[in-house]
Amino acid sequence: MITVLAGGVGAAKFLDGLAAVMPPEEITVIVNTGDDAHFHGLHVSPDVDTVLYTLSGLVDQEHGWGVAGDTFHCLETLRRLGEDSWFQLGDRDIALHLRRTRRLREGATLSLATQELCAALGVGCRILPMTNAPAATRLRTPEGMLWFQEYFVKLGQRPEVLEVDLAEAAAAQPAPGVLESIAETEAVILAPSNPFISIGPILAVEGIREALRNTRAPVAAISPIVGGKALKGPADRMMKSLGLDSSAASVAELYRDFVDLFVIDLEDAALRGEIENKGMPVLVTQTVMSSSNARKDLARTVVDGVRGRT
Amino acid sequence: MITVLAGGVGAAKFLDGLAAVMPPEEITVIVNTGDDAHFHGLHVSPDVDTVLYTLSGLVDQEHGWGVAGDTFHCLETLRRLGEDSWFQLGDRDIALHLRRTRRLREGATLSLATQELCAALGVGCRILPMTNAPAATRLRTPEGMLWFQEYFVKLGQRPEVLEVDLAEAAAAQPAPGVLESIAETEAVILAPSNPFISIGPILAVEGIREALRNTRAPVAAISPIVGGKALKGPADRMMKSLGLDSSAASVAELYRDFVDLFVIDLEDAALRGEIENKGMPVLVTQTVMSSSNARKDLARTVVDGVRGRT
Repeated sequence: MITVLAGGVGAAKFLDGLAAVMPPEEITVIVNTGDDAHFHGLHVSPDVDTVLYTLSGLVDQEHGWGVAGDTFHCLETLRRLGEDSWFQLGDRDIALHLRRTRRLREGATLSLATQELCAALGVGCRILPMTNAPAATRLRTPEGMLWFQEYFVKLGQRPEVLEVDLAEAAAAQPAPGVLESIAETEAVILAPSNPFISIGPILAVEGIREALRNTRAPVAAISPIVGGKALKGPADRMMKSLGLDSSAASVAELYRDFVDLFVIDLEDAALRGEIENKGMPVLVTQTVMSSSNARKDLARTVVDGVRGRT
Repeated sequence: MITVLAGGVGAAKFLDGLAAVMPPEEITVIVNTGDDAHFHGLHVSPDVDTVLYTLSGLVDQEHGWGVAGDTFHCLETLRRLGEDSWFQLGDRDIALHLRRTRRLREGATLSLATQELCAALGVGCRILPMTNAPAATRLRTPEGMLWFQEYFVKLGQRPEVLEVDLAEAAAAQPAPGVLESIAETEAVILAPSNPFISIGPILAVEGIREALRNTRAPVAAISPIVGGKALKGPADRMMKSLGLDSSAASVAELYRDFVDLFVIDLEDAALRGEIENKGMPVLVTQTVMSSSNARKDLARTVVDGVRGRT
């Protein structure tokens, strides 16, 4: 059994590789829900969706999110009706949100609605939202406090992030199975996701960081920063605006209290000493997942590496 | 001012003609909501939608309902997720349902949500749902009690209708403006809609039939039965299974207590005497709306005819 903490696109690619090199049924994924939001009355859970679409093979490979070949006729009509349309919702994508929203209104938890979607889409991994409670991430910026999706999509990640407000996540209880899946697993892997807005909200949920510190399973983390740059998204700029160096070593520092193996890219091999000096063993490998084989290779290498820490 | 009682496709065509021959702002439409239903958590109001799509020019001319050129990617995906998909919902159509459903959940009445949709779609007529309360029509058939859409769409109108249950409509209050629009108008016109499942539910709502009896405005009704057949839908078969002759004269009989002018097609000219013997003046004209001009001609003829009854 392997437990993975996951954000969106980078995590989904890693999981895609992982599910190809071990039985999906042995993988539990704890997914960030800090960027969940409501659009047009629909409960959208972007990181869960990206993981579901990727693992079911439906994903739009070019964007890394959404459904391949999707159309936007509903959204265009909503715009015509005067509705906000800055959040991209494809017609096929909306089906999934309708299904989830209906189940939530019927009283199902997000956990159960997600489990049902896994079954409907033939996804073998166990996907757990980090919490079933509201846990919206907010960002303090020079333009004021913003909801995650306002910052990320509406404003295209342009505002400088001065603070990440995870108060809602900190007040939320983990979803059923989350703490157990950390305590009773063979290994935990933090996927290469943004440490502030993807992994950070998961760690903020009550008891999760402590469970990671206390688990007897080894914990590995894969740096989302390669050569000082985020492979996708604003992690590098956020690190700077939050007062850190944009480097894999800074990410390692954020996880120092519970990570047993830190995975960096070949390009960052020179950082090995700096990170090991923090007391964290380092695994240097190709972390950029530019092909299906690269995803599998990374998954295999990290699993082997973290198992070796037992 | 003209007030029209309306069901779906036939009514929408008539209204299209009417709005072309008089200022739309002078037209109030009271629309059947007995076939409203929930699909995938969306509040769908089929007759209101057909009127909105027709008057906004968006309608699929071939079917008479839905949006021209619409796609069904969302519905296909819902089917893939294991959801019922017998009720056709196009991607563009879903936008309207999302907007309505959101507003209803926010506490808006169906009247207000409809008024907002009119504004967003540039529809000048005043569209009033018959009631803001639930008023679901049910049908007793050999296959048991069916909700309207189960009978109409899921089972393709095949079961024999033994009884039309309008108990919910009978317990519902009319929406604001409905009774006033009957009492204070220049004329009332019953569009050529099914008397049992389109006009019937409107007449069943508390106070509406009485308002039609009491208004000083003349009331005209256009027969939806021509040559013994329904132009669209199951009205003719329903008349028989409910123990009536399938003829315009039978429809006239149903409205005898409040109609001042009954409009029949040229094809039914021979029925004039029979209907006039019931005490209802008859207008014989071309009622089949096979072209845009035919819609306008019918509207002009009926408006002139009913105004002449004042």
